[in-house]
Amino acid sequence: MARSTVEISGHIIDSLILPKVLDIIINLGAEFEILDIKVGHRRADRSYALVQIDAPTPMLLDRVLARLKEHGALPANEELESALLEPSPADGIFPDHFYSTTNLLTWVRIDGRWIEVELSEMDCGIRVNLETLRAQCVPIHRVKKGDLVVTGHHGIRIQPVERQIPRAGFEFMSSAVSTEQPKGLLIEEIAEAMKQIRRAHGRILVVAGPGLVHTGAARYLVRLIEADYVQVIFAGNGLAVHDIESALYGTSLGVHLDKKIRASEGHEHHLWAINAVRRAGSIKRAVESGLIQSGIFYSCVKKGVDFVLAGSIRDDGPLPDVITDTLHAQEAMREKVRGVSLALMMATTLHAIATGNLLPATVKTVCVDINPAVVTKLTDRGTFQAMGLVTDVEPFLRELCQRLELDLASVESRAAH
Amino acid sequence: MARSTVEISGHIIDSLILPKVLDIIINLGAEFEILDIKVGHRRADRSYALVQIDAPTPMLLDRVLARLKEHGALPANEELESALLEPSPADGIFPDHFYSTTNLLTWVRIDGRWIEVELSEMDCGIRVNLETLRAQCVPIHRVKKGDLVVTGHHGIRIQPVERQIPRAGFEFMSSAVSTEQPKGLLIEEIAEAMKQIRRAHGRILVVAGPGLVHTGAARYLVRLIEADYVQVIFAGNGLAVHDIESALYGTSLGVHLDKKIRASEGHEHHLWAINAVRRAGSIKRAVESGLIQSGIFYSCVKKGVDFVLAGSIRDDGPLPDVITDTLHAQEAMREKVRGVSLALMMATTLHAIATGNLLPATVKTVCVDINPAVVTKLTDRGTFQAMGLVTDVEPFLRELCQRLELDLASVESRAAH
Amino acid sequence: MARSTVEISGHIIDSLILPKVLDIIINLGAEFEILDIKVGHRRADRSYALVQIDAPTPMLLDRVLARLKEHGALPANEELESALLEPSPADGIFPDHFYSTTNLLTWVRIDGRWIEVELSEMDCGIRVNLETLRAQCVPIHRVKKGDLVVTGHHGIRIQPVERQIPRAGFEFMSSAVSTEQPKGLLIEEIAEAMKQIRRAHGRILVVAGPGLVHTGAARYLVRLIEADYVQVIFAGNGLAVHDIESALYGTSLGVHLDKKIRASEGHEHHLWAINAVRRAGSIKRAVESGLIQSGIFYSCVKKGVDFVLAGSIRDDGPLPDVITDTLHAQEAMREKVRGVSLALMMATTLHAIATGNLLPATVKTVCVDINPAVVTKLTDRGTFQAMGLVTDVEPFLRELCQRLELDLASVESRAAH
Amino acid sequence: MARSTVEISGHIIDSLILPKVLDIIINLGAEFEILDIKVGHRRADRSYALVQIDAPTPMLLDRVLARLKEHGALPANEELESALLEPSPADGIFPDHFYSTTNLLTWVRIDGRWIEVELSEMDCGIRVNLETLRAQCVPIHRVKKGDLVVTGHHGIRIQPVERQIPRAGFEFMSSAVSTEQPKGLLIEEIAEAMKQIRRAHGRILVVAGPGLVHTGAARYLVRLIEADYVQVIFAGNGLAVHDIESALYGTSLGVHLDKKIRASEGHEHHLWAINAVRRAGSIKRAVESGLIQSGIFYSCVKKGVDFVLAGSIRDDGPLPDVITDTLHAQEAMREKVRGVSLALMMATTLHAIATGNLLPATVKTVCVDINPAVVTKLTDRGTFQAMGLVTDVEPFLRELCQRLELDLASVESRAAH
Repeated sequence: MARSTVEISGHIIDSLILPKVLDIIINLGAEFEILDIKVGHRRADRSYALVQIDAPTPMLLDRVLARLKEHGALPANEELESALLEPSPADGIFPDHFYSTTNLLTWVRIDGRWIEVELSEMDCGIRVNLETLRAQCVPIHRVKKGDLVVTGHHGIRIQPVERQIPRAGFEFMSSAVSTEQPKGLLIEEIAEAMKQIRRAHGRILVVAGPGLVHTGAARYLVRLIEADYVQVIFAGNGLAVHDIESALYGTSLGVHLDKKIRASEGHEHHLWAINAVRRAGSIKRAVESGLIQSGIFYSCVKKGVDFVLAGSIRDDGPLPDVITDTLHAQEAMREKVRGVSLALMMATTLHAIATGNLLPATVKTVCVDINPAVVTKLTDRGTFQAMGLVTDVEPFLRELCQRLELDLASVESRAAH
Repeated sequence: MARSTVEISGHIIDSLILPKVLDIIINLGAEFEILDIKVGHRRADRSYALVQIDAPTPMLLDRVLARLKEHGALPANEELESALLEPSPADGIFPDHFYSTTNLLTWVRIDGRWIEVELSEMDCGIRVNLETLRAQCVPIHRVKKGDLVVTGHHGIRIQPVERQIPRAGFEFMSSAVSTEQPKGLLIEEIAEAMKQIRRAHGRILVVAGPGLVHTGAARYLVRLIEADYVQVIFAGNGLAVHDIESALYGTSLGVHLDKKIRASEGHEHHLWAINAVRRAGSIKRAVESGLIQSGIFYSCVKKGVDFVLAGSIRDDGPLPDVITDTLHAQEAMREKVRGVSLALMMATTLHAIATGNLLPATVKTVCVDINPAVVTKLTDRGTFQAMGLVTDVEPFLRELCQRLELDLASVESRAAH
Repeated sequence: MARSTVEISGHIIDSLILPKVLDIIINLGAEFEILDIKVGHRRADRSYALVQIDAPTPMLLDRVLARLKEHGALPANEELESALLEPSPADGIFPDHFYSTTNLLTWVRIDGRWIEVELSEMDCGIRVNLETLRAQCVPIHRVKKGDLVVTGHHGIRIQPVERQIPRAGFEFMSSAVSTEQPKGLLIEEIAEAMKQIRRAHGRILVVAGPGLVHTGAARYLVRLIEADYVQVIFAGNGLAVHDIESALYGTSLGVHLDKKIRASEGHEHHLWAINAVRRAGSIKRAVESGLIQSGIFYSCVKKGVDFVLAGSIRDDGPLPDVITDTLHAQEAMREKVRGVSLALMMATTLHAIATGNLLPATVKTVCVDINPAVVTKLTDRGTFQAMGLVTDVEPFLRELCQRLELDLASVESRAAH
Repeated sequence: MARSTVEISGHIIDSLILPKVLDIIINLGAEFEILDIKVGHRRADRSYALVQIDAPTPMLLDRVLARLKEHGALPANEELESALLEPSPADGIFPDHFYSTTNLLTWVRIDGRWIEVELSEMDCGIRVNLETLRAQCVPIHRVKKGDLVVTGHHGIRIQPVERQIPRAGFEFMSSAVSTEQPKGLLIEEIAEAMKQIRRAHGRILVVAGPGLVHTGAARYLVRLIEADYVQVIFAGNGLAVHDIESALYGTSLGVHLDKKIRASEGHEHHLWAINAVRRAGSIKRAVESGLIQSGIFYSCVKKGVDFVLAGSIRDDGPLPDVITDTLHAQEAMREKVRGVSLALMMATTLHAIATGNLLPATVKTVCVDINPAVVTKLTDRGTFQAMGLVTDVEPFLRELCQRLELDLASVESRAAH
């Protein structure tokens, strides 16, 4: 029999943290006794609970404590403990039993001080520099031999996501996936958030799949770019090729976007577009040389919007801008998500999940897809802050532009040609 | 006004080729006149038709002819034409208007002779060696400066997929996606095909996603490997890590597969499994050192089954065996699909489509997924030969093992522990 | 061995009829020989084929002939045969082996004359009146003892659906289900068809499910009704209650449609709305008394639009207007589909299929749902003419209103309150 | 400003009731203060909280109190209040503001005593007989003029569903919808529950859709019936006709279930099967006369299993056993759900939701469908106790039979013919 005591404080009842903690203890096979509890009488007040845990084995007790830590429940004697540090045995290899991070705000206790972990990202290790007394998340492939990495669960504190007071629509709608809901209000909220972010010079990230071009929605994304509502784009070879095929030939996968002709089978335009950009050397050069004169990537180049095109094994070509090494692509994405306040993911599973893995939980995340499974997958993987909108991307973007009061006359007349 | 005449022969009525040809002509905006038709009186007889096409512009006529070629309709004066060859302007770049391949058997006419194009693969160029008089499909990134590549649609002949006589179940069921059908018969057919292929020492490829481990189906794939029904496996980091996590800790994403405990959130086992294999150096060494003692990849190493693990931007880690560069991964897959007679794709979209892109249309392809959209996507991308089975992968594999008369007592008792 | 000869004429190659006929013969286990074929040289020309069939047994030959008849292939000696008639043995019971109808135009041969079958509907029997020499489809429950009903497949001729020349968009897009397509063009076509139909004083039927109200789309349907684009509505209790709850309380299933409050669980408003209308006696009286002052059914009453509310076992209440007996509801729907030129089905599976069962194949049918399976089910059940649009119903209806140039300012400001 | 005080007791923290209560207060726009709280120190202990609510208007306070009551939070002065009763103004009409029921155990306070409400069912009114001092749920169409019905929310107490201690798998898995999970354990739990129920002579209800026959799963349901694991079946015309068509002709919708022939289009067998049973007078007579000699309904008749076939507007025929009036069908179902301990719903949306509406929350409910949306819909409608299993019904039933140790040799050989 092993026993320990944990403390929890904050909005622990209102925010469901206490029930979750008790739930975890029971589920893992341990027992609890609440030694002390002080409940805040009003919403703004904080509560406090002292919970004793009895587990059949010390190993199980450890597992329980580790899980509780994710919810902000710290061993009552935690103040005395420091994080354990071990050197990495080789480049790209963590020490055994390294602590794997969440996407929440985290501190480690070193030399009697709580240090905030920088570069918050899930599924990483925590590398500590004892000289500078700084700690940061590091992905496994970037750790170097001898780097000190946190192991076990001692001396670690996490700030669970508490619900906000007053709760904004965003928090409220979290993870809603239903197809049967009035979407206008949600889109209005997204538009409001975008306006606020841009007023504060914040950055907005768009993550998009190729369906965005097929469904005729590219024109609205172009409008957002022109109006400074997009600071960075993550996509794959597919989206870029469809967009450029459309600029060069007016088709997407051989289908004319604005006419009734659906000359399907041939992939020629698709492949020729790739070849043309390879010849130009890059998308930027293809725009500058006048080869590409419209579309999403044309606007990105003209407005100086950053983009990362990440490779996948189903790519044709690919375009010269595509980063074919997936680790390098992750690095490029990791670089560009710093400072992003809102991520708008549309019509893509692979890129949405890959981006979700890199985002701190504090980044507002909106996932729009006609398939409810995409949103579910995203939140299952740990991107709890994602708000899901099950709808068609084309009408979604059109309405978003309208709510942002963008003039669509120009794009819609362009489309008519 | 431009006019041309094409000939079609074979089972052109029975196999729907003639109606398709007429359809294409009209859809693209041209007109036809059937100058001559001889219809085979019996099933085994071949038919012949001579069709004159009138198009408003020579450019449109060219487009019509290009599309008709995909269905085996050749210009009546084709015999006289040779394929046009142009040198590639630089490494990794085709000449303009290069001919992009289908996954069908193709010939090019060079020096008055029809030459079969080797290494059949869709969305490639055709590289011709005038000295050896050989032609082969080449992906864009592998073409070298000066390589002669076919441009335009002259001097090219394609063998459309005719339905077989007598038609086996496989052909008959092609592209069936319905969830409401008795699946036992289809699984019986797949088992029969697998037995035949192995009797003839043919190769079977398994392409699998991580859901295969989550749903408890890994044990059946292990059984297929042990019984020599799998010669090569394509997968991603996810499947391998889940499988190895299960071998090391008995969990998959932290969930115990054989007990009722669902200790979900923590990804520790997942990441520790990655770290352990990185430390061992490779999956093979981790098996040889005794670290990994069961599972899909344990069996692969023990039986000498080839596997290709292709990287993706959503990977954790990854394992040292993962090919992180997507072009290198495609090359490795391209290498291993040669000689495959049957591809069995289960619970994966990304790898199924990537593999489908590489397969000649003659490879029997079975795609099993609980989501009908995966099968639809696969055939939309040109893998017409894919037979879809909308069902759960765990019962599918169990029944497949039973139809192959594999003893499951051992695996199922193993699972009980 | 049994042998027979059938004739086919019309656009038999272009329209895929000949290949289908040959396909059926082989699939059922018989053999064919094409005795004669004359192929039209131009699109407008008709073709002719004489096909001899050899089947192993007379029973199988009969089955083949029955199936071929559905595609317009008639026994070459058909002219001599008359339809067999047998009296129904009792009310609501057909004679054995009665001929079951398709939704295609059909003739029966009686007394040496071809008589067109009236009230075209699938899955019925054909009742013949020898005195008036009229024939009509009759559903099984309406046949009376002694009524003469056609049995077997002799003396029956069906007009298969040929593709139109020139083919309008509607025919071309038939059965398209893809989620990845530009929808603007399709909606434009639907709008055009609606305008044409109304110019010719034709009738438009709307079949709608309750999701239409949840998603905030009701206001657009109201606009269509006000603008005379809807002549009849089929729905269930659910749609009507949601609409009336919204009119009385501003909520739908307890959720405020135009505010951020989502006070979900309580069904009180839903049930109180039902009770209030029951008290008023009917929807019409509830409108006339001033109880209901807005919404879909308010507009229906004001504009004199017919509606049929059909009961289902999952209904709460129901409203007094709901026809709880499903046979009576079918009869009411059967009555109202006469004369309809376009059926627009939105966000409903049950009512879409039930309506599809009643519609002749000549009625243009559009099925809009966010779930691709609904469209597939509809066409699987025999409603081949259905064009599917996989999208969200709210943006669909908004765009449809825009393409019909309806002023939306009023409805959208109304919604804002 | 209006103020009230509510008491909550039980496992209010562990079972999430207290946080939910606080949540509702805030969401509806009121404020709370926790006046007193006593938290049980151990799992088995009960807790108690006294919460004061301040709302801007008395109307809002009432709404808050009504919602809290659903979670067992009673006004602290509740003991003093009696339920308000009003007479129904007419047959089939409740008084205004009637209290609409949940599917939870409910008491009403009459004459200073708490009376348990009988016939627990959601969305009904509560009818009170002052002479017998009994109360029962009554659907709206069955209330009679003058019946006393509870209005408002005074004098009502509900027992919220607390999680069980020790929690059995059933509770734990509640509402799991994921497609990626090992299903064997869940099926094992269902089998265990079925064995226990039958040992205690409890009743098991099967609710099934027509897909059960198409997918070849009927043989397993037959086996369950033969082994006394099914006491009552709810279905529609479709399931019964498919089953009987299969018994008479070996086909389902014209498709041979056990052979490779898929002679689709013709619905003749389907309609002839309907006609044959209509002629026999009922399914029971058709079995007794020897017309039907196998299948689900054959076994039902032989084993004396009750069945209710409820009509729908998409029915062909229907069979004489089908209750075409949906209110009568609901009544028949309502009658038969009394005493049921487990409801097993498979491959049906309409019947699953209709049955869910009638079931008290204490009935274990399992919903099996390949489409995740069905399970979501069921729980959205208030059937919170439903456990979802997203899988194919055929392998599900096969494995269920195996886990129940039923001999399948006979059925599987029967199927082979």
